[in-house]
Parts: sequence; structure tokens; C-alpha cells
Amino acid sequence: MDVLCAGVCATDLALARGYMAFEGVPGHEFVGRARTGRLAGQRVVGEINAGCGTCELCRSGDPRHCGTRTVLGILGRPGAFAESLSLPAANLHPVPEGVSDEAAVFTEPLAAACALLEALPDGASGTPALVVGDGRLGLLCALVLQNAGAHVTVLGRHPERVERLPSLRWATPEPGQQWPIVVEATGALDGPQRALDLVCAKGTLLLKTTLEAPSQLDLARLVVDEISLVGSRCGRFEDALDLLARGAVDPTPLLDAELPLEKGPEALARAAQPGTLKVLIRNAATAPS
Amino acid sequence: MDVLCAGVCATDLALARGYMAFEGVPGHEFVGRARTGRLAGQRVVGEINAGCGTCELCRSGDPRHCGTRTVLGILGRPGAFAESLSLPAANLHPVPEGVSDEAAVFTEPLAAACALLEALPDGASGTPALVVGDGRLGLLCALVLQNAGAHVTVLGRHPERVERLPSLRWATPEPGQQWPIVVEATGALDGPQRALDLVCAKGTLLLKTTLEAPSQLDLARLVVDEISLVGSRCGRFEDALDLLARGAVDPTPLLDAELPLEKGPEALARAAQPGTLKVLIRNAATAPS
Repeated sequence: MDVLCAGVCATDLALARGYMAFEGVPGHEFVGRARTGRLAGQRVVGEINAGCGTCELCRSGDPRHCGTRTVLGILGRPGAFAESLSLPAANLHPVPEGVSDEAAVFTEPLAAACALLEALPDGASGTPALVVGDGRLGLLCALVLQNAGAHVTVLGRHPERVERLPSLRWATPEPGQQWPIVVEATGALDGPQRALDLVCAKGTLLLKTTLEAPSQLDLARLVVDEISLVGSRCGRFEDALDLLARGAVDPTPLLDAELPLEKGPEALARAAQPGTLKVLIRNAATAPS
Repeated sequence: MDVLCAGVCATDLALARGYMAFEGVPGHEFVGRARTGRLAGQRVVGEINAGCGTCELCRSGDPRHCGTRTVLGILGRPGAFAESLSLPAANLHPVPEGVSDEAAVFTEPLAAACALLEALPDGASGTPALVVGDGRLGLLCALVLQNAGAHVTVLGRHPERVERLPSLRWATPEPGQQWPIVVEATGALDGPQRALDLVCAKGTLLLKTTLEAPSQLDLARLVVDEISLVGSRCGRFEDALDLLARGAVDPTPLLDAELPLEKGPEALARAAQPGTLKVLIRNAATAPS
């Protein structure tokens, strides 16, 4: 398909620094236009995990953990910072009418935020929840939890980022204050331990940060207070597209800059600047004139 | 109440080494005889967490995480390596007839093993489960999971320990072999990471080890493979006493030695010897002649 635009994610920056010994074209957040197949000519977004199609997980409709999967722009499959890309037809979803390219490019990270709810069997409705980290993914996680009925507070270092989304509350915790649901989305090596200190006994810590280095964690606290630490990665695009189509979540206030594809390296550098949230790469060859 | 006998646990050894800056009488696994109250004259075992009785958790019948709790022989309450001890009446359970002192003294660690099932909302029936660690608690965890219908394998360094419980299987994993349920009960600093390597994508790692030092953990693996890491501590005595009364679990093959109360320090030293499983401390003042 032709790529219309693509978003820069923290994972792209980590890959550029050597995470997973990555080589090739990065980029896994995109809006494209299908060239062939049932969606030919339509605007599409695409699930990034391409499974083998034959293992038990793939046959159950969930290739996200297929042992021989490729992952767009991350593992064995050229990514979206390009004029075109290729994904299995089954991975593609049409972008609902009324959802702009600028909103639809958030489908993949928004789906990753929606994945939090899969890890909360009792749901989040009416429950206080803290999101540690006010970056791109942290703020999307906060919006999704809020939409699920949680009472969400964001803990970060940049109140001005949280203020872009007026429905969210920013806070400095009181000494000893703890939450039954905590999301760790700091991208920092000490983030998991800092977040663990803020979880109630019997609470759940949802982990989003992926770093190459191992983290130090006070596991005795985890055992004594019977805390669950749940790793959470990719979500289902249906959930994210539904939120966007209903206007329940509007991620576009997170957009900071837009650069043309030729300035890809500059786009990554811009995304790495402190304070920057989402940077968009536009493929001028397909852009509306 | 009068203490009849008490068991030595890894936590007692850790406390003796300075864990939780403990001072006082340790010991939290015991069989006693109640002196007063509704159970006067009866053999009893006792839940080790004594809550405030007024907070929300206590009122819901679960003082295990009361913020101001005392814990028998661990936190603010003298323990069972003594002639007598004191616990709230609500903590006491009569020992069912037909359950020997030597079996009943395992109620507390067996309840801790039963707590694993509270952390497995889908149960364990028919599921392959690996227990990493062939110490006292690891073997009890294996027996409980097996009783819940899991296909249990124990990974340890002492096949002769596992052989004391002929229903259990001991194994060396094949390279790359992984399990959907893994219990970490090694008591070793590198145990959690070794156990994490053995969990399937979307699997659950149940953590039992409490150590003072923080552990190194590859949290990216946890996130990418969406693994749940669940801390598990104290269980409900009802569950353990039911297993003992039905003869569904017989922990007595784990007994290695019995020493009188006067030889308490020797009993701890014996329990710390490599290869020793359970050491019993008998209060001669109450022992049957």
C-alpha cells in the first residue's frame, strides 16, 4: 500500500539506538491507502504483527504472540517510514469516515493503550488509577482508562503536556498515597520501581516500558503486598478505531510537528527532544495538494 | 495458648539474618492448645496476620493486608518458638480430628501454597505448570497445583527431595521449553529472572520468594510477551485444613528432624543446612509423655 503518513514512537527511537539489533526501515504507526484487495483505494490502518497463520495462536485470531511472527518496522518486516509498505490483507482495517489521517495515525498506540483493559479482568470503572509517565503512550493510556470509567491521575514531569488534554488531572502524590491501578509508561529504567511504590496492596501495576537493560525491582514488596505486575504490549485495532469513530478519545492535541518523508532523520531527532509528544511523517507523494 | 510444636521456615532464617530488622521471638508455623475461649482445650492452628479489626480490609474478613497489622513472629508480635503465644481468637482454627500435629504444623505454609490458586482466575486444571525451586515451599506449591488438576513439573537442584513425594515429576527443561504457569520459589536472588525465562507468552509467573535485595529483571520480556508476574504470600487456613483433613495432600514426608524448644538455635542451623526440608521444634513441656 501507499503510506499517507506515519507517527514516530518511542520504540522507533529505541530501535535507532540499537534495541533488538534492528536494521532496516522503522515505523509501525501509519495511515495508508490500499492498492489491491477488498480495500483497494480505501484509507487503511494495519495491525503490526504478521503471524504464520497456521499455529494455534494465529488460528485463534490472535497472531500478536505467534512465535515466528514478523512485526512491521520492528522485526523482520520493513516499516512505515517509506513511500509504501506491505502487510497481510487480514491485518488491514478501513479508517472510518470522519476520522482524519491525523487521528487515525494514533490507532496503533491507542490500541496499545486499549490493551490495558484486557489485563484488568474486573475492569476499571469507578477505580482510582494512576498513570506514571506523561509521554505519548502514557497520555493515551490515561485517556483510555478514563473512557473506561476510571478516576485517572497522571504523574509526570511536564504538567503542560497533561494540560493539552483538559479532561485529565495532573498530580503530585501525597507521601504514602497509593492506587489500586497504576500504569508505568515512563520509558525510564527506574520507572517500574517508582511505579511499584505507588501501587496499593493487592493492586495491579501495568507495565508499558520496554528497555534493553534489566530493571532493579523490589520483588519482596510485590510478594508481601501481593501485587500483580502485568506486561502489556499490542492491542486490538477494532477497540481503538471504535474510540476514534465515536469521538470518545481525541488524540490530536498530542501532535507537535509534521515533517516530510525526506526529512525522516530530522523527524526522529525532533521526536527525541524533551517535551515533544507526537511527530508525524508525511509522504508528500501521496499528500493531498 | 500453649505451643505444642512449631516449624522452621525460610522466612525465619531470613529474619535471623536481619530481614525486616527483626528482633524478638520468631516462628509463625505452629500447632497449639487453646487455653481460653470457644476453643479452650482444643488443638488449634492460627492465621498469622492480626489486623486492626476496624479498617475496610479487616471488616471484609481479610486482615492479611491491613495497613497496621501485626504478624506472628515476623512483625510486632512474638512468635511460636516459645512455650506459649497469643493471637486474636478470630485467627484460630481447630485442627480436624485425624490430622496429626506433624501434618497440622504445615497448615500455614500449605495455605501460602493454596494462595497461588487465588491468583489464577482461570484455575490450573489441565494446565502444564512448572515449580522452580525444590525447597519446603516449592514442594508444597507443587502438591497444591497438582491437587488443583495442573500437570506439575518441579525444577530444582535436588531430585532426591522431589522423590520424597512420588506423585511429583522432576525435570530438566528442554532448551526453549516454556510453561503457561510458573511458580518461583527458589529463595535465590536470580530465581525470578530464571523463572521468567521459562514462562510462555501470555503466561503467569507466581512469585513466592521474599528477599531484602532488589532483583534484576528483564522487564522488556514481560511487556513484549505480555506476561503477568503475581506476588503471592499468605493463604486461607480453611483451604489448607480441608486438604489435610481429606488426605488430599500429605506434607509429612518433608519432615527431616525434630528438636526440643531448648535447642531452638540448633533447629534453625539445621534448617539452614543444604538439603534439609522441614525442621520441627517440639515444646517438651506440652509434649505427650
